[in-house]
Amino acid sequence: MSSKGELKFIGVVESSGELSSVKIFPEFCVGLEGLNNFSHITVLYWFHLRNSEEERRTLRVVPRRHLGAPQVGVFASRSPSRPNPVGLCVVELVKIQDCTLVVRGLDALDGSPIIDIKPYIPRADSISDARVPEWTFHGPPT
Amino acid sequence: MSSKGELKFIGVVESSGELSSVKIFPEFCVGLEGLNNFSHITVLYWFHLRNSEEERRTLRVVPRRHLGAPQVGVFASRSPSRPNPVGLCVVELVKIQDCTLVVRGLDALDGSPIIDIKPYIPRADSISDARVPEWTFHGPPT
Repeated sequence: MSSKGELKFIGVVESSGELSSVKIFPEFCVGLEGLNNFSHITVLYWFHLRNSEEERRTLRVVPRRHLGAPQVGVFASRSPSRPNPVGLCVVELVKIQDCTLVVRGLDALDGSPIIDIKPYIPRADSISDARVPEWTFHGPPT
Repeated sequence: MSSKGELKFIGVVESSGELSSVKIFPEFCVGLEGLNNFSHITVLYWFHLRNSEEERRTLRVVPRRHLGAPQVGVFASRSPSRPNPVGLCVVELVKIQDCTLVVRGLDALDGSPIIDIKPYIPRADSISDARVPEWTFHGPPT
């Protein structure tokens, strides 16, 4: 088995805020057909500012934005410093204009490369009663 | 901005079925600390059998497992043939034994490389009333 995989970025976060604009590059734009039938999407993006070898060696973190959080393994956190700097965010799809998605709630920074867009399907993706530790209730959602 | 990103695989699906075993490689194992406090996790994995240039050029698909599904763009589907062959699956974490996760509901194949493990946090990840098209209700969840 190969020990590595290569990603080609399909778009970029053009502006972020309460509403964010995600531009999909023209060569991938037809892949958006039918996406408007979904109210929510999962955006996979690249934590481009955490792509150094040092950041990617991080295996333990203290989630400081979450008051009272203990030190945990990176895979028990949503820290951007992790072996593969891939971010995951579930957002509301507000509208699609040409090749640009306008979404609500994206936590990516301006300039973050986009890896993938997936439709959000509650029967697969929604576990409303999943158990989590207390510290996840403090601070931002992730 | 770089147009590519490099993934290093952190583990592999050792066996799949109703329960699946996901082995995390020893050098990443400490990253699992504290994960046992979450009942569910999101597994990001590599569709290793769909990593050819041809598969990765796919931009439109017919989701044939879903009766009545029309042709849609890949980003409006969960097809494994897509520009970046990254799979996303929300699963129940049954137990952690040494560096192996036993999970329920993983749709990956034996031998699929693992990209990342993230804790599932309902306040960020669960949208129980997300709107989806009718065809998504037929067949498997994704």
